[in-house]
Amino acid sequence: MSTQAPPALTERADALDAADELAPIVDRFTVPDEVIYLDGNSLGALPRHVPAVVADIVERQWGHDLIRSWNDNDWWHAPTRIGDRIGALVGAAPGQLVAGDSTSANLFKVLAAGCRMRPDRPTIVTDPAGFSTDTYIAQSVARLLDRRLVYAAPHDVLDNGDRAAALSDAAVVAFSHVDYRTGQLWNLPEVTAAAHRAGALACWDLSHSAGAVPVGLDAYDVDLAVGCSYKYLNGGPGAPAYLYVAARHQATFDQPLSGWHGHATPFAMTVDYEPADGIARGRCGTPPMLSMLTLEAALDAFDGVRIEQVRAKSLSLTGLFIDAVDQLVGGDVQVVTPRVPGRRGSQVALRHGQAFQAVTALIARGVIGDFRQPDLMRFGFAAPYLTHRQVVEAAAQLADVLTSGVYDDIAPSATALVT
Amino acid sequence: MSTQAPPALTERADALDAADELAPIVDRFTVPDEVIYLDGNSLGALPRHVPAVVADIVERQWGHDLIRSWNDNDWWHAPTRIGDRIGALVGAAPGQLVAGDSTSANLFKVLAAGCRMRPDRPTIVTDPAGFSTDTYIAQSVARLLDRRLVYAAPHDVLDNGDRAAALSDAAVVAFSHVDYRTGQLWNLPEVTAAAHRAGALACWDLSHSAGAVPVGLDAYDVDLAVGCSYKYLNGGPGAPAYLYVAARHQATFDQPLSGWHGHATPFAMTVDYEPADGIARGRCGTPPMLSMLTLEAALDAFDGVRIEQVRAKSLSLTGLFIDAVDQLVGGDVQVVTPRVPGRRGSQVALRHGQAFQAVTALIARGVIGDFRQPDLMRFGFAAPYLTHRQVVEAAAQLADVLTSGVYDDIAPSATALVT
Repeated sequence: MSTQAPPALTERADALDAADELAPIVDRFTVPDEVIYLDGNSLGALPRHVPAVVADIVERQWGHDLIRSWNDNDWWHAPTRIGDRIGALVGAAPGQLVAGDSTSANLFKVLAAGCRMRPDRPTIVTDPAGFSTDTYIAQSVARLLDRRLVYAAPHDVLDNGDRAAALSDAAVVAFSHVDYRTGQLWNLPEVTAAAHRAGALACWDLSHSAGAVPVGLDAYDVDLAVGCSYKYLNGGPGAPAYLYVAARHQATFDQPLSGWHGHATPFAMTVDYEPADGIARGRCGTPPMLSMLTLEAALDAFDGVRIEQVRAKSLSLTGLFIDAVDQLVGGDVQVVTPRVPGRRGSQVALRHGQAFQAVTALIARGVIGDFRQPDLMRFGFAAPYLTHRQVVEAAAQLADVLTSGVYDDIAPSATALVT
Repeated sequence: MSTQAPPALTERADALDAADELAPIVDRFTVPDEVIYLDGNSLGALPRHVPAVVADIVERQWGHDLIRSWNDNDWWHAPTRIGDRIGALVGAAPGQLVAGDSTSANLFKVLAAGCRMRPDRPTIVTDPAGFSTDTYIAQSVARLLDRRLVYAAPHDVLDNGDRAAALSDAAVVAFSHVDYRTGQLWNLPEVTAAAHRAGALACWDLSHSAGAVPVGLDAYDVDLAVGCSYKYLNGGPGAPAYLYVAARHQATFDQPLSGWHGHATPFAMTVDYEPADGIARGRCGTPPMLSMLTLEAALDAFDGVRIEQVRAKSLSLTGLFIDAVDQLVGGDVQVVTPRVPGRRGSQVALRHGQAFQAVTALIARGVIGDFRQPDLMRFGFAAPYLTHRQVVEAAAQLADVLTSGVYDDIAPSATALVT
């Protein structure tokens, strides 16, 4: 990476880094020296302390303590213990989140339960531009529970038009907090309030906001939520997801993945399913404990960090990146992500006719972002482990790639990296 | 553990160990020196080579390669790659198993899909004595798909009575291959054939047989199956489960946990769900890769081992244990597990009025079995890492505990260890 950003940008970046409250946190993570990692919105970096913890989980807890670990190392309560810790990062009081399963499976649980809470309302409203798995799961739940799926974007339900009217029939309104393609941050408080005025439940997918953006689940009376923990929460590849059920709904939360870990008395092994009190009824089967306990350890990287600090630095990073792209790349790309800070999450998406080739060329240089069909470059900015200096260097590399045309020999491909 | 087994038994055990074809395999696992581990039917032991592999997964694949691992380390295909390896241990040709999710979630998928394959048949038949989560999930699927749940034990469907007649209405007949309490091995070939004669699909839970008992999924025309990988497959605590769909059913396999990993073109991120060809349509969301890849590594412990060898040694171990219990404990306990070798899995269950106290006292001595309500001691025999000598020592410890009454001060408790 010999390409240099202009001095004015690097000086500005260095000044921002010098004033960065979270600068001491960067060293809690390991990222290869030759890499500028702008894909924390797909897979968060490895916290430096985690490998030693994983070795303990494997060698002592599994290898030595064996089955006794369910009691002696309290494996059993890890899902609710971790749920509370994630809850603290998304504005939920204890007892309302539980970790386990995938985001898809958890969305299945909460959408089905939400429909059952509103038995007389015939529709589920969701955004066809939301992450694909959310739409697929909504289709499945609608089919199983004989509901109609209505497509609308979050801003539509704030209008007075026909789409907003569709809310009046909705059992559940399910949206992503941040659009995975554009990086747009939707107005969770207003959309939630609109759903409530119409008599619907509001369900949010926090995969692209948890650990990066304050969410305020309790403050804004969100009903249901899900999210993954392997992006900005840095829980490790495919780390267990989580679900949130507001305390006021838990007694009537009736979800179809009724495995024994969600039972009131799991070891009585009774014939009939009886859900546990509280959020534990969101559990299903035996969770993958190596991934689960690794996630728990990874969350230590947030110790002493307030999510508002993360958000402030994230906006500083994304703002600087947009400025640098404007200066260095100019009209060659379109900044798809909102320029208004309050309307963007923690990523910047750029549109370009050869986005796949450009991203591939950047990755070859160690600047790791990703590509989304058909023409988007995505760059995620994980405030805990990025510096402003890296941000301007990445923009300079992008400018160099786009102007030098070194990517012309890369064949377009449908292959992409995992969100 | 000062208690000694009688010389006649130890000599017999030593002779069996001297002739044991799998003796060289024992060293592939690490079990603490002070422990005789008879709970591999709950959580298999740690293969010795696994910690180094886990360190590589965490430090290189996650920490260094980061998001690139989905392609460069082929994380994406791990579920089907692992499925094929488990398939080889349960008699399934490649392309019919996929790893991921929990046994509960996978049973949900296959039962729902099975009902959809038999739209005109109004019942699901399952065993109320089966593992609790299987029954809970069957209840949920029956409710969602408007089917009636009919309870029958596997041997009932081989009778000519009313319960067998119930098969004529069944969409799916779902049983455990081995009873988790009694250790009874059910007659999979005959029950499967009876289901087919009645026009029903046969679904088996292999949690207590995979890795211990030959299953013959393809040979006996099983339709659907699920199982966990953390017992006799030694995949690690809560390791991803798997599901099997016979090749002939895959084109019509329509399962409701339709997450994006099961999509035909996951990275096209289309609005509508279109299932992948083949067994990949059994996938749901992003799997827990640390647990998944650990499972993959753990399966190496079976390299060069034929399941028939495992079965032969397992029967030798359980047979010796039953003999030793007969000799040393006598009428104080009831051997619940069938004495006929062909009718037992790889565990021995003993009934005793103070089973919980006895198991607790044994664990304190390093002999680790477990307890099932209300009065069962369970001892699992994982042939790859147990010796016959350990088996007779465990029986001697049990005899000593039961005759010395040292467990009288242990309070009964509803707490138990995880299956």
